Amino acid sequence: MKERGLLLVISGPSGAGKGTICKALMENNTMWLSVSATTRQPRNGELPGKNYFFISHEEFQARIEKGDFLEYAEVYGNYYGTPKSNVIDILETGKDVILEIDIQGALKVKDAFPEGIFIFILPPSMEELKQRIINRGSETPESLMTRFMSAYKEINFVSKYNYAVVNDTVEAAAKKIESIVIAERCRVDRLKDTLINKEELTHGKLYD
Amino acid sequence: MKERGLLLVISGPSGAGKGTICKALMENNTMWLSVSATTRQPRNGELPGKNYFFISHEEFQARIEKGDFLEYAEVYGNYYGTPKSNVIDILETGKDVILEIDIQGALKVKDAFPEGIFIFILPPSMEELKQRIINRGSETPESLMTRFMSAYKEINFVSKYNYAVVNDTVEAAAKKIESIVIAERCRVDRLKDTLINKEELTHGKLYD
Repeated sequence: MKERGLLLVISGPSGAGKGTICKALMENNTMWLSVSATTRQPRNGELPGKNYFFISHEEFQARIEKGDFLEYAEVYGNYYGTPKSNVIDILETGKDVILEIDIQGALKVKDAFPEGIFIFILPPSMEELKQRIINRGSETPESLMTRFMSAYKEINFVSKYNYAVVNDTVEAAAKKIESIVIAERCRVDRLKDTLINKEELTHGKLYD
Repeated sequence: MKERGLLLVISGPSGAGKGTICKALMENNTMWLSVSATTRQPRNGELPGKNYFFISHEEFQARIEKGDFLEYAEVYGNYYGTPKSNVIDILETGKDVILEIDIQGALKVKDAFPEGIFIFILPPSMEELKQRIINRGSETPESLMTRFMSAYKEINFVSKYNYAVVNDTVEAAAKKIESIVIAERCRVDRLKDTLINKEELTHGKLYD
């Protein structure tokens, strides 16, 4: 039996550096980045199946009804969601899947897929978080303040996660996440459900 | 505040390779190996404070009554035990402590110090385990069989541990344990008790 892959949910406040960390994880590991489905139109340069799966409103609705989303949300009349079947298909091949997602989304995924590994990315400091939000440059002072206050409040949600990783440097944060993956593969709680059960151990099947 | 060290309890059946793995961990990391106290006489070449703390029967009894052992056992009229105060003193300096111990001992430590990380070392296979026990050479066929059967039964106790690490190679097993330590430092459950509490987060103290 091939060992199932792990679903890594990389989440945290806007500006904490989720995206950069996920990129680093992808470069050093054979992990698959979960691609969202959306009903909005592709923008310039966006590739179907890479940036998003672009699907019709009708198909999205049908898949909601079939329960085929780990989470979904409607934003300005368009749907965005994480297709469950795609994620499961990859996990079954033994590959790990990274899901980069905001906090609201991550909490929904936790309900639908509690065996995922929920990692909260913390900015090195609140000052740093403010700078990162400012450095994006595309915000008005008001929306900047709103974003900052929202990120500040969101940090309380860390208690719903399994792990908290401070993003001091991208390399160090990615290294910690790689260690988390190695450790999770050794967790007895996780092994109990798959490889090791008392019956098999007693009859020595584990060691055949 | 200095972050407290972690207590790593490395345990498993006789012949699984606990000792070699602990040695490898000590060589690559700044970890402190817990030294047991005993009432037995030092053997040739044994150093006090390195191999054992050699103490009198009276002192051992007094320390049992003070609750100063994470675990202790009497073997052929001599006491052996893990001094709690020594372990705690080192943990308080921020260093991690390795405790290499048999399964019975580990389960007692778990009662006394549940915040430890309990790692069960599994032999690569039961055949390998048999070979390792045979290779020690100091056993009669009967005691060998007893040891093997006991190791075989003991493997069921893996379910009481946090992690199971298969000892395919010493290097790979040590690497996994190092990853477990890194991951445990990121666990929200562990952070909750020390650094992160909602109050501090709400008032931004975490980030001052």
